[in-house]
Amino acid sequence: MKNSLRVVVIGGVACGPKAAARIKRLVPNSEVTMVDRGSIVSYGACGLPYYVEGTCSKIEALVETAAGIPRDAGYFKRVKGFDVFTRTEAMKIDRKNKTVLVRNIDTGKEDTLAYDKLVMATGSRALQPPIPGRELENVWYMRSLDDATSMVDKIQAKNLSRAVLIGAGYIGVEMAEALKERGLQVTMVEVFDQVMPQFLDPEMSMLVAGHISKKGVDLALGEKVLAIEGTGSVSAVKTDKRTIPADLVVIGVGVRPNDELAKDAGLDCSPKGGIVINEFCRTSDPDIYAGGDCVVNRYIDPAMPGPVYVPLGSTSNKHGRVIADQIAGRAASFSGITSTGICKAFEFNIGRTGLTEKQAREIYPDVETAIWAGADRPHYFPGSKNLIVKLVALKSSRKIIGAQIVGQGDSSKRLDVAAGAIYFGATVEQVGNIDLGYAPPYSPPIDPIAAGAHLLANKLDGIAHSVSPIEAKQRIDGGGVVVLDVRTPREFNARRVAHPDVLNIPLDDLRERLGEVPRDRDIFIYCGVSLRAYEAQLILNAAGLDRVFFIEGGLAAWPFKTTSSKQS
Amino acid sequence: MKNSLRVVVIGGVACGPKAAARIKRLVPNSEVTMVDRGSIVSYGACGLPYYVEGTCSKIEALVETAAGIPRDAGYFKRVKGFDVFTRTEAMKIDRKNKTVLVRNIDTGKEDTLAYDKLVMATGSRALQPPIPGRELENVWYMRSLDDATSMVDKIQAKNLSRAVLIGAGYIGVEMAEALKERGLQVTMVEVFDQVMPQFLDPEMSMLVAGHISKKGVDLALGEKVLAIEGTGSVSAVKTDKRTIPADLVVIGVGVRPNDELAKDAGLDCSPKGGIVINEFCRTSDPDIYAGGDCVVNRYIDPAMPGPVYVPLGSTSNKHGRVIADQIAGRAASFSGITSTGICKAFEFNIGRTGLTEKQAREIYPDVETAIWAGADRPHYFPGSKNLIVKLVALKSSRKIIGAQIVGQGDSSKRLDVAAGAIYFGATVEQVGNIDLGYAPPYSPPIDPIAAGAHLLANKLDGIAHSVSPIEAKQRIDGGGVVVLDVRTPREFNARRVAHPDVLNIPLDDLRERLGEVPRDRDIFIYCGVSLRAYEAQLILNAAGLDRVFFIEGGLAAWPFKTTSSKQS
Repeated sequence: MKNSLRVVVIGGVACGPKAAARIKRLVPNSEVTMVDRGSIVSYGACGLPYYVEGTCSKIEALVETAAGIPRDAGYFKRVKGFDVFTRTEAMKIDRKNKTVLVRNIDTGKEDTLAYDKLVMATGSRALQPPIPGRELENVWYMRSLDDATSMVDKIQAKNLSRAVLIGAGYIGVEMAEALKERGLQVTMVEVFDQVMPQFLDPEMSMLVAGHISKKGVDLALGEKVLAIEGTGSVSAVKTDKRTIPADLVVIGVGVRPNDELAKDAGLDCSPKGGIVINEFCRTSDPDIYAGGDCVVNRYIDPAMPGPVYVPLGSTSNKHGRVIADQIAGRAASFSGITSTGICKAFEFNIGRTGLTEKQAREIYPDVETAIWAGADRPHYFPGSKNLIVKLVALKSSRKIIGAQIVGQGDSSKRLDVAAGAIYFGATVEQVGNIDLGYAPPYSPPIDPIAAGAHLLANKLDGIAHSVSPIEAKQRIDGGGVVVLDVRTPREFNARRVAHPDVLNIPLDDLRERLGEVPRDRDIFIYCGVSLRAYEAQLILNAAGLDRVFFIEGGLAAWPFKTTSSKQS
Repeated sequence: MKNSLRVVVIGGVACGPKAAARIKRLVPNSEVTMVDRGSIVSYGACGLPYYVEGTCSKIEALVETAAGIPRDAGYFKRVKGFDVFTRTEAMKIDRKNKTVLVRNIDTGKEDTLAYDKLVMATGSRALQPPIPGRELENVWYMRSLDDATSMVDKIQAKNLSRAVLIGAGYIGVEMAEALKERGLQVTMVEVFDQVMPQFLDPEMSMLVAGHISKKGVDLALGEKVLAIEGTGSVSAVKTDKRTIPADLVVIGVGVRPNDELAKDAGLDCSPKGGIVINEFCRTSDPDIYAGGDCVVNRYIDPAMPGPVYVPLGSTSNKHGRVIADQIAGRAASFSGITSTGICKAFEFNIGRTGLTEKQAREIYPDVETAIWAGADRPHYFPGSKNLIVKLVALKSSRKIIGAQIVGQGDSSKRLDVAAGAIYFGATVEQVGNIDLGYAPPYSPPIDPIAAGAHLLANKLDGIAHSVSPIEAKQRIDGGGVVVLDVRTPREFNARRVAHPDVLNIPLDDLRERLGEVPRDRDIFIYCGVSLRAYEAQLILNAAGLDRVFFIEGGLAAWPFKTTSSKQS
């Protein structure tokens, strides 16, 4: 008689427990053993910044089920029926004999676990940049529950008040909010010249930076950290431009996959790191599966050269499910990711899915983009907030391949619609035609994502002649052009593009004041969100002027300096 | 030389102005004339309940652009370049000579407008049920700006305090909130035995009804209104069961398309009403287009027998765009709707897209459904709220064909994801694998829509053995079954399914207390949201019990009576 299926799972945070629990559901008589280096398994690591902020006040909640039951080894055994060994490190995989050598970190005791199928969910770790002083006290990476609790305890006990964040990615941005809300002074240092450099195109990034600055965070962009200084505990961060006093440092410059165990076992790994898996989450060894933060993912678009590394808890859970189905002999596959991410920074909701314009242009020769700005609900509905939507599409196929959505409005909803659209290979027309829910408390009749798609379609069709804010700025700074503001004089006086010579003709008067518009120069038009500017472009076109462009997203998406009549 | 393109647009609310403005954009030298019966065009009719509620305090905002410019005839001429005749009724279409006879309502003056292309956007009107007394004062249909302003004025001037709403559809539900928030007593009468009968399946509807009742609205379901009583103004509403005192009545029993003009002109109309259009929004006359509330729509799924009537401002705008493109000779089409709708009732967000289970079963022989309940964000994140998701799919294709999402959580986002999924013909597996945005302020790692899809997949695969709350209730009431609550005794004592004999074994203890579970009866298990109940089902299955089902959505989706230990 055949023995029951033996499964060993290495790693107990997201993919591991998901796979283990589902294997037990699908194959009740299987013997599933999960090992994890830590003392706590299956915790909500993404909640850590919110514990520091004080939004989530109970750190225990991060390791409990929704019903308030601690997800400890006993819980998994009693409820899910599998064994968990915490504080247990997987040392070596013997693929020939199908065993894993494990060692208890506290006792040093070693053991050998036999498997029929092995699941590697070894996770990731914070990238530790080679900065002198990174070992000082009060330097955190914000990866574990202990990072969060120790930081909060220290802030309270030692009255730490000056924080420097190294890196302006997810962790940096979320911790900027968290520490600022706790009342600390916060400086964010980033070696690239924009926040969220891997995540957003520059003009979208500048909007985020503007919001973060307004909230009182000092941004030090394009600055390289040379050292963390201090005796015992940190006292300053030295960059290539200055020295910033600091009681507390958070390093958030990225994570890297824990793929060493897989490499040692001879499994295929990506040159840049990360276990390579196929659409069944299987590694190069047919009896070993891998998922979660330790793997590189297939990108949904086959044009992408090679896999991508985007570690996220949502993807880890999907991997875990597919791994369990595969091990149980069920058909299941994971078709890939679209690099979707979302992040809150104060009142800004920052989302991105698919490719940025920069990424798209590296792969495709026929990229077109459009930036749309406007309210997330009907303008008459109180509490409606602006969103800035940037869409990236291909001219030939008209498929949308990327979306960036930022602003105080509900970007999360539009992001998920865009993620679905890219997943299903939708064209700009299809995105405009999805039958989205409409009622004033939720959205305007033409949803921002549809409005963005319409603009992009108009641009692809040569109806809308528009330029991005960055292109507009370059052209305006180059001189010899007309900048035309088609808002009312009141709006114009209150706030406008900072330029010595902006022509103001309200849209309402434009047909009658056509004579005032120079015919011998390129004209760049804007308004609040560029709805009126688009109309103005068409009026000028109809009047025979054809060197006319509107600035996409208007003032709402203008990331550069603005001025008012009092200041000028 | 050919004359410029002459376009006449009948109707000035949503589809009409959209089409007219875009035609002028695409064909600048066209002559576009829009006529409308009303004195106000292009207003946000969907905002009316929010004006009554006091949420939107300026009625003018409903007729202004986002920039605060009134959308009157002068605005359209100056900005959009087309002519608008208000208070002007289209009397007759002469298709042979391609003219429209129009008449000014105030002066009686008639005129004949010649067209090359005609756009019919004649809208809809409230269904006036044959109830005696509906002509009394203080009876409203809530269709025009005047309805909203006169109602608010009357409520204030005459101190109207008792409202009866006839019909529990969109208008009824939105006005129930609006009038309750204004401090009125509100009774909602509905001839069907559920709220939103066309929109939701019964169990989802019962959850909405429960919330509305809790907010103090009296529900009179399954009651037929026989008469509205009063002398001059309304004093009561008489139903087949009782007489309800009333100072104010809102009739919201549906709308019907204004298709008479089209019918008179011999254009194809649906037997139930509504102009028939093809995917180019063209009527049976190739020179006449129609869109907005006056047409019936193609449903996206060709299995649907015949077109459907779902008038919505969002669809009207899509029609207007396609009509303009077609008239301008550009390729554009409208592939159809998925009957998406969303509506707010107090703190409940009520969404639906695709087919209800009832509708699906009328068309397909192999329908499966699943109800999932849970939080819209990680349980540890403050402010996370429950959602109840019902998905409808086909067993053979595994395609999702319907979704209903209700609750205090963010249903709007999941609704739009589901609308996209149905639009693109997604399977349950695909919905589970879309790379949705994940961060604690926005969603749990497994988004509710994905979790619902997973449950449905598990059910289709025979892994999850579950029943809907309605089926469970029927089986429990039939007797001879075991009802098993697998929550903690504390949860059990606080609130549980109202039944004289509910067995309580916490999930944590279930493996050790298997002996207490009867083996000779069907077992129906539940917990808070049925996550634990699902685990319990699998534990009992593994222990050899196979007549085991969990109740989908647990207590969160249980629309029937509950009890506590004190009461029992």
